Amino acid sequence: MQPKQNIVHLPVYQPGKPIDEVKRELGLTEVIKLASNENPFGCSPKAKEAIAAMLDQVSIYPDGGAVELTNAVAGKLGVQPNQIIFGLGSDEVILMIARAFLTPEDETITAYPTFPQYKHNAEVEGAKVIEVPVDANGKHDLQAMLGKVNSRTKIVWICNPNNPTGTMLNEAEITAFLEAVPKNVMVVLDEAYAEYNVSGQYPDSVKLLEKHNNVVVLRTFSKIYGLASLRIGYGVGHPDVVRSINQVREPFNTTSFAQKAALAAVNDDAFIESCREANAQGIRKLTAKFVELGLPYFDAHGNFIMVDVKRDGGAVFQGLLRKGIIVRHDPSWGYPTMIRVTVGSEEQNNKFLGALEQVLSEVAVS
Amino acid sequence: MQPKQNIVHLPVYQPGKPIDEVKRELGLTEVIKLASNENPFGCSPKAKEAIAAMLDQVSIYPDGGAVELTNAVAGKLGVQPNQIIFGLGSDEVILMIARAFLTPEDETITAYPTFPQYKHNAEVEGAKVIEVPVDANGKHDLQAMLGKVNSRTKIVWICNPNNPTGTMLNEAEITAFLEAVPKNVMVVLDEAYAEYNVSGQYPDSVKLLEKHNNVVVLRTFSKIYGLASLRIGYGVGHPDVVRSINQVREPFNTTSFAQKAALAAVNDDAFIESCREANAQGIRKLTAKFVELGLPYFDAHGNFIMVDVKRDGGAVFQGLLRKGIIVRHDPSWGYPTMIRVTVGSEEQNNKFLGALEQVLSEVAVS
Repeated sequence: MQPKQNIVHLPVYQPGKPIDEVKRELGLTEVIKLASNENPFGCSPKAKEAIAAMLDQVSIYPDGGAVELTNAVAGKLGVQPNQIIFGLGSDEVILMIARAFLTPEDETITAYPTFPQYKHNAEVEGAKVIEVPVDANGKHDLQAMLGKVNSRTKIVWICNPNNPTGTMLNEAEITAFLEAVPKNVMVVLDEAYAEYNVSGQYPDSVKLLEKHNNVVVLRTFSKIYGLASLRIGYGVGHPDVVRSINQVREPFNTTSFAQKAALAAVNDDAFIESCREANAQGIRKLTAKFVELGLPYFDAHGNFIMVDVKRDGGAVFQGLLRKGIIVRHDPSWGYPTMIRVTVGSEEQNNKFLGALEQVLSEVAVS
Repeated sequence: MQPKQNIVHLPVYQPGKPIDEVKRELGLTEVIKLASNENPFGCSPKAKEAIAAMLDQVSIYPDGGAVELTNAVAGKLGVQPNQIIFGLGSDEVILMIARAFLTPEDETITAYPTFPQYKHNAEVEGAKVIEVPVDANGKHDLQAMLGKVNSRTKIVWICNPNNPTGTMLNEAEITAFLEAVPKNVMVVLDEAYAEYNVSGQYPDSVKLLEKHNNVVVLRTFSKIYGLASLRIGYGVGHPDVVRSINQVREPFNTTSFAQKAALAAVNDDAFIESCREANAQGIRKLTAKFVELGLPYFDAHGNFIMVDVKRDGGAVFQGLLRKGIIVRHDPSWGYPTMIRVTVGSEEQNNKFLGALEQVLSEVAVS
């Protein structure tokens, strides 16, 4: 019973410690998690009402086509319903794109570091993954990525804003890239953090679909919409592309609860606006302090900031953890002195900054 | 942008009509759906309480490893936690098994007709699917399936009880098959309806795992547990097999709501017992009437019955629909005069039988 040879090297997910266990081990009463880019303000109250209203429908299968939600999102975006496909988070849309399009004969291009699921799913399909380092500012190096496109290239994945660096490619940069890339190469624009953008220069990617049949835009309800527990996201693209992705979709791939919550959430513009504004304030507050502390950081256009603590990032991560603050530090990112912190509520941000100052005084500069 | 050549022939999911639309079109005020083998008694009240208790956690990512639920189910089954993998319904476990193990060089064997996701996922992976017709009683023809095993065979899928026929393979039959099949061939025992069994002869498949490293057992919370809307099921197998499946699993493939509801449901034995008993009564009631009406049926060991209406099954389906009863008739099953009906509540069963008698009088015998 041999598994596929191209999966035997893949890492196996290691479940993290439950927060209660972290508290017990460290003797803490409060733990603040600023590690997963969750919305510190929760979700729209309308989404909670929608979930509660579903409690007498638990035993009924979901609408496999998510028809009502698809129509609502299509209307909001100004596209046709057959241009949208829902997934178990945008993660599953990435999986389905890879499963429908990538073969061992194909190459696919990603930035490095970036969201790991592009590479993971491409490797499951046996495709060759070309990773192009981000530039010194943490931005996708689109020229270098373009230079890697050849006749075997099937998909280019662009995470915008990029996770983990937080940097943004603006409308002009994305448009120039799309004009230059061959039309038979799919360009996936993963915009999980799109709704946080306040730069005024963020691409109107759904509009770009009108001109570029090879673009697929990914969005999620896990971030600003605050529905991470429910796992729902979507892709928007040309009807032919969406049709191919649908051919590998499981019949019931999103839950009824997720569909109803997303339907309620997508129409609560006031909640989204307030979260976007609070996040922008949080970024200003955090980065002002980083400047004061002499810590460089990448331009932050999502709900997280990658900051150079000028010390071993793992040691700073551990120091913060002991004070009850969980952030992210991943040695595989290639930034040994950087940590990624989610923008929290004002109270969480203040506690993080207080803890960070203490930890910086305890850990030697690298 | 060519999709994989092995997926271009696959059917695209056609969303069904929402019940409200069916009601409007047919001028009905009540519609009874006995088409999807859902639990007519809903789910455990404890599961609903668990869902309600999660409403302040909507924005938090699920535990990707479903640690608490895994430990609970492992304890109940008497296996180790590393022998269990959760999926978005057992559907996703089927997908993950295919994705981790099947290649275009492999063959895989299923019954016909059976649950369509084995074939679907095998075809996405490019494997050759060998379909072996069930016998005259609607049962898997294990001898014929064994006869198709060769050096390229990677997986044999056994749906027990079989969907759509409802028939069961007993402990002796399954054991003899496992003794005969080569040890390098994976045998997937899909037991979605296991908990409905009252035959006293159903295999103790988890026990069989001790002797047969090549067996993977699938179970679900969508049927007797009544959590279909939440999409959660699992596979049980040898740790090495589970590890390989985990290598293609999405990090957050089940929702927090599903995990918590399943955890509450798995310990409510009284609810399961009452559903099993009511279902057995319903089968006795329905089959007694089928005998009275002179309608043959397959032995029913799940929560549904496949009955020969001796008339065009499509016409009987339509006749029932006009009376507000939705059952299943699928021409691809190869039984033109049979329909599949889910065992409902006593009231639903009575309404179905009343409507059926009327429809039989309206549709000519084939």
